[in-house]
Amino acid sequence: MPPTFTALPPMTNVPLATRRSTAEQARLETMLRDVFEHRLRFNEVLGLRVVSFAPEAPQLAFDMRPELIGHYLHGRLHGGVIAAALDTVGGFAVTVGIAEKFNSETAEQVGHRFGRIGTIDLRADYLHQGIGKTFTATGRITRLGGRIASVQMTLENEAGLLIATGSAAYVVS
Amino acid sequence: MPPTFTALPPMTNVPLATRRSTAEQARLETMLRDVFEHRLRFNEVLGLRVVSFAPEAPQLAFDMRPELIGHYLHGRLHGGVIAAALDTVGGFAVTVGIAEKFNSETAEQVGHRFGRIGTIDLRADYLHQGIGKTFTATGRITRLGGRIASVQMTLENEAGLLIATGSAAYVVS
Amino acid sequence: MPPTFTALPPMTNVPLATRRSTAEQARLETMLRDVFEHRLRFNEVLGLRVVSFAPEAPQLAFDMRPELIGHYLHGRLHGGVIAAALDTVGGFAVTVGIAEKFNSETAEQVGHRFGRIGTIDLRADYLHQGIGKTFTATGRITRLGGRIASVQMTLENEAGLLIATGSAAYVVS
Amino acid sequence: MPPTFTALPPMTNVPLATRRSTAEQARLETMLRDVFEHRLRFNEVLGLRVVSFAPEAPQLAFDMRPELIGHYLHGRLHGGVIAAALDTVGGFAVTVGIAEKFNSETAEQVGHRFGRIGTIDLRADYLHQGIGKTFTATGRITRLGGRIASVQMTLENEAGLLIATGSAAYVVS
Repeated sequence: MPPTFTALPPMTNVPLATRRSTAEQARLETMLRDVFEHRLRFNEVLGLRVVSFAPEAPQLAFDMRPELIGHYLHGRLHGGVIAAALDTVGGFAVTVGIAEKFNSETAEQVGHRFGRIGTIDLRADYLHQGIGKTFTATGRITRLGGRIASVQMTLENEAGLLIATGSAAYVVS
Repeated sequence: MPPTFTALPPMTNVPLATRRSTAEQARLETMLRDVFEHRLRFNEVLGLRVVSFAPEAPQLAFDMRPELIGHYLHGRLHGGVIAAALDTVGGFAVTVGIAEKFNSETAEQVGHRFGRIGTIDLRADYLHQGIGKTFTATGRITRLGGRIASVQMTLENEAGLLIATGSAAYVVS
Repeated sequence: MPPTFTALPPMTNVPLATRRSTAEQARLETMLRDVFEHRLRFNEVLGLRVVSFAPEAPQLAFDMRPELIGHYLHGRLHGGVIAAALDTVGGFAVTVGIAEKFNSETAEQVGHRFGRIGTIDLRADYLHQGIGKTFTATGRITRLGGRIASVQMTLENEAGLLIATGSAAYVVS
Repeated sequence: MPPTFTALPPMTNVPLATRRSTAEQARLETMLRDVFEHRLRFNEVLGLRVVSFAPEAPQLAFDMRPELIGHYLHGRLHGGVIAAALDTVGGFAVTVGIAEKFNSETAEQVGHRFGRIGTIDLRADYLHQGIGKTFTATGRITRLGGRIASVQMTLENEAGLLIATGSAAYVVS
């Protein structure tokens, strides 16, 4: 369809009075860590932990565990685990991006925005077998508009092997 | 990401005073035909024509022409033509769906809504070679929310062979 | 890219001597049930069970459980669970399709073919919130070639609400 | 599906006697330029020209022209043009990658391999409006196996604005 995103506001940072304080940023990160490591219940099943809040490439990681395996003979990650990790790190990247875009807001205000994020759709490309001890998922925002965010994701093992890539769109507000 | 579409309004038809008249519907269809067959300039290159405004499965069609071929030896549709047709019929389906959802609005009002539709992302699955004389693209809406629409598309030749399927998300308002 | 699938063998059923016996088919289904419900370890986490071996639309189902939830406040399926279920039912559909295509082969022979199936890529479209008691995932093959299979998937709750759709490509042999 | 790519041969360069000569490489590039600029007929409609044969990031480019526009009012690229350019540069990247992988083969041998490449599926993410004078499409291979290739693509305008990204899978042999 041709008229792509007529109505989307330009991807600019809202000019904000003052950036949140270091203490408030720490409070925000503690809250987001709790949300992504525990309150999103299924993330506990995956064993996801927050590795980096760096806005340009936020990261989650998880360790290989028997429950995450696909076929018992092969000892590889189940494709569904890979898709779930990609989706989650995409949403995490959007959350961190929003926390940065609205960087004068309190942890609670950002939490409120987080509650309105939703995945529209997700693509996962399975490139290499999911073998390894620890897997790191990284999300990089390619658009953060007023209504839609797009993210590209990767999953690598501890040797830096690129196991999967992903693309996803999220609704934001 | 877990909280899928918290903020999306339920996919209900707005309760409307009166459905637009038959004359106004005809005016609307004439306008949309003009937009999709001519004003979207590249659609003229594809030779797209409107075949059906049926809201449950709107259709466009186009004929094989030398310019639409991929490799000159094979006489098959270029994959990009297929992707373009899928994208366009998806947007057409959203437009027809919006015209139905807001079925008391005038042609101009629907045209205004059309101008705000944009493709967020598109997937095309190439199933069989694009061989044939006439190709029909069909779009079926799977969600028409207040902000996001999702559509599934197909492309078939005149023998009913399924050449490609597609999925796409559109921003609407 | 234009020359779509020059080299793909036509999607024909290999002419086979005799269809496997009812007893052998039962043995095959027992084996596949064991694989999809238990040996793919992560499927146990999801609680997936085989509901139907019907080749035109094989089905898996699972029940809502606290571990499968995204945000604890909302009680909805995590998007990763949805993606995992879609991926798995796509692979299940390919497996059932291959068992049907090579319907004179023994359970072991089909099992050997199963071991060579792999997901190339996956798309998931999140349409409605993952709320419900029981979720049914269905896969429908759109291509089963000698090297590539394509599948379209759906996930519905017990009320028939379409929660998500998916498309995936698989490598087969 | 769990057993991702059991059967895929490792992504190694076949150990080859001697790399093709500079003259033969020039012959190959002339041939590929002819194929991608002219013989894939629809590429002429798009006005695609080869910009770079660099194996790590091959590039095509095209200029804005009235026929490539979506809505006549906006002067933006039609989404289908964007999808077509992404698909084509993905296939071009696979072709260049294969020419590099089998770098002792003649132009004709590579041409034969090219004829067997086909797009399996494609995703396009539309990030910014397709406004500009010249658009450059780049493809980067993320997997080049014996049967499947995966590529990530971008489309930028002359100012370096990222208009779209894409992912695609191709069948190769």
